[in-house]
Amino acid sequence: SDRQKQETGKSLDPYSTDPIRHPALHVNSLKPFNAEPPAVILSDNYITPSAIFFKRNHLPVPQVDANIYRLHVEVLPGVTPGVTPLSLSLDELKTRFPKHTVTATLQCAGNRRSEMNKVKPVKGLNWGIAAISNATWSGAKLKDVLLAAGYRPELAQLACHVQFEGMDRDVTGTTYGASIPLNKALSDDGDVLLAYQMNGEDLPADHGYPVRVVVPGIVGARNVKWLGRILVSQEESRSHWQQNDYKGFSPATDWDTVDFKLAPAIQELPVQSAITQPAEGAMLDRRANEVRVKGYAWSGGGREVVRVDVSLDGGQTWKVANLQSGEKPQPGRAWAWKLWELTASLPPGTQELEIVCKAVDNSYNMQPDTVAPIWNLRGVLSNAWHR
Amino acid sequence: SDRQKQETGKSLDPYSTDPIRHPALHVNSLKPFNAEPPAVILSDNYITPSAIFFKRNHLPVPQVDANIYRLHVEVLPGVTPGVTPLSLSLDELKTRFPKHTVTATLQCAGNRRSEMNKVKPVKGLNWGIAAISNATWSGAKLKDVLLAAGYRPELAQLACHVQFEGMDRDVTGTTYGASIPLNKALSDDGDVLLAYQMNGEDLPADHGYPVRVVVPGIVGARNVKWLGRILVSQEESRSHWQQNDYKGFSPATDWDTVDFKLAPAIQELPVQSAITQPAEGAMLDRRANEVRVKGYAWSGGGREVVRVDVSLDGGQTWKVANLQSGEKPQPGRAWAWKLWELTASLPPGTQELEIVCKAVDNSYNMQPDTVAPIWNLRGVLSNAWHR
Ligand SMILES: [Mo]
Ligand SMILES: [Mo]
Repeated sequence: SDRQKQETGKSLDPYSTDPIRHPALHVNSLKPFNAEPPAVILSDNYITPSAIFFKRNHLPVPQVDANIYRLHVEVLPGVTPGVTPLSLSLDELKTRFPKHTVTATLQCAGNRRSEMNKVKPVKGLNWGIAAISNATWSGAKLKDVLLAAGYRPELAQLACHVQFEGMDRDVTGTTYGASIPLNKALSDDGDVLLAYQMNGEDLPADHGYPVRVVVPGIVGARNVKWLGRILVSQEESRSHWQQNDYKGFSPATDWDTVDFKLAPAIQELPVQSAITQPAEGAMLDRRANEVRVKGYAWSGGGREVVRVDVSLDGGQTWKVANLQSGEKPQPGRAWAWKLWELTASLPPGTQELEIVCKAVDNSYNMQPDTVAPIWNLRGVLSNAWHR
Repeated sequence: SDRQKQETGKSLDPYSTDPIRHPALHVNSLKPFNAEPPAVILSDNYITPSAIFFKRNHLPVPQVDANIYRLHVEVLPGVTPGVTPLSLSLDELKTRFPKHTVTATLQCAGNRRSEMNKVKPVKGLNWGIAAISNATWSGAKLKDVLLAAGYRPELAQLACHVQFEGMDRDVTGTTYGASIPLNKALSDDGDVLLAYQMNGEDLPADHGYPVRVVVPGIVGARNVKWLGRILVSQEESRSHWQQNDYKGFSPATDWDTVDFKLAPAIQELPVQSAITQPAEGAMLDRRANEVRVKGYAWSGGGREVVRVDVSLDGGQTWKVANLQSGEKPQPGRAWAWKLWELTASLPPGTQELEIVCKAVDNSYNMQPDTVAPIWNLRGVLSNAWHR
């Protein structure tokens, strides 16, 4: 029967039930699905439409029935026998806890990896500059749920981490997992959400339906989708992605010498910016006497981008771009990117422009000038000046 | 009489009562006194001895009689008529509040300004690489004192800043002043101290006797010395140093175009490192087949330095240095520098080494490669790779 065929197909290809995607996306990998929007349209919207928000899946998209969905929350099991684990339905998550909405930019650790690949090949998907997007997320505060699950401040001595387990699994049954520092989860100003809405609608399948974690200011990889389980623990997640991936190394470190224990798991990301318009190699109209440059800028850890410098001559001279943002962020809670633009007159007789941008955040960290000195074998944290 | 002479002398030269200083210091300005230790000895001690801790005075050192000293603390005066201002003697500060000890590195905003001066002259003292030092500080928590002065969480809507006023004054009577964000002051993990001890002894006169603010992770300029008054307010300090100084600008901004309103006051500092040994231009023994390189590394905002890369060939290839620190810092509270060292074999036939270092913190921010693109008219935030 058709039904049998479908099930047979499904068992052969765990990706057969993945959702339909927007045809404009540039696909870096089909199975699992990884794709970014065309960079040239990324700066058209301050809030990225969900359909073109970059997709970064590690595994097949799980089919989750929201009617039977449960979120399991445990606080130091074994260590705190008095505490009862919580098991929440989607409806309970929505009704028992206040709903909060946060505008937050997510960025893949591998955004702009292709620039590192040009220096020397690295391991990973060859992302361009658009593995970053901005959305509004609504859900319960993780803090509220942890308190309801019995977390008490006295436990801070025993617990340092909150682990998240996805419902996406590989062929051996291993699920995607990650963790974040507990103090980020418990901070009033941390704004960590168990989100069930993206841009005002139910989460799309590719973005974690029915529930994902949104950890503003922290690398995308910790914003676990299709969230099944939360665990307050003494240790970081034991997952491959927390322990042996998503860490930064020196350019001197190669696959023969790398020791993943020596570097911290990426959490907050460094300051970042890139040029979305004009596209690389674009021809400018000779009759025009000015050029309009557009792009995005963002920094991790809630640090606000305070300036973007743009150069038309490869970094010899600079102009300050105009920044566009949503509401003025509260101090330390600048979770969303800023779009920027600059209209500059063309120097007379210009044959070619080398447009470069670099951003500065409110800790006055700046982007490094060049790619080679930040090159790393995994191709993460690629935030040199964009040119 | 002698006494009259002394008083006449004093009235003519407000610096005549400044303390005696260590003769090893490199003096950048005598009146006010600004000096740094020789860089080559900076990395000899994890805790910098107070006598050679860099001195950065904006005004004459005030003579404060600890027996009549009062610290005045006000919370939104005018706005909160119910709250009674606090006036604390030194003894009350020491006995009414628990004593906390924090190891914290202070860095002048102008550290390494001399490297910017080489690109194009800037305004300010020509600091080398040693306007940074590390000490233990003991005192009351600012948070505890603000709560005792009537600060209540409901006031957070009205107040965003804590202002500090020094007892050092210029000829017109204007005192040194600065402010920090209120959330830093109130955070349990912010570790902001009203310090009355440095390295286990009373504060030296040059470091703020009898009381100074220590704001770990924040630029030296906000760590107000000879503290006279604390004010919780809606606005940042109106002082010259908060409003029209200690801000970062684009290399394109000059004194004709600068608008100090457009940049945020420096608070958290970016990631930093420098080489203390061998000294610049040092001759290495031809017979040695290795070189030992030493230095410091630090980052603002409690971010921990996780790696220092060292190059002997001007940045073409890199080696990872060994880091030395005190106790493992708690997450987000890495207030103290790390000293580092690397012993590397000399490439055969080496005539000259171009030693370079760059640090990475746990938000994976890195130092920019070169000075010119971060050059700014005030010569602050000079944190390019050190070479
Ligand atoms: Mo990622
Ligand atoms: Mo300073």
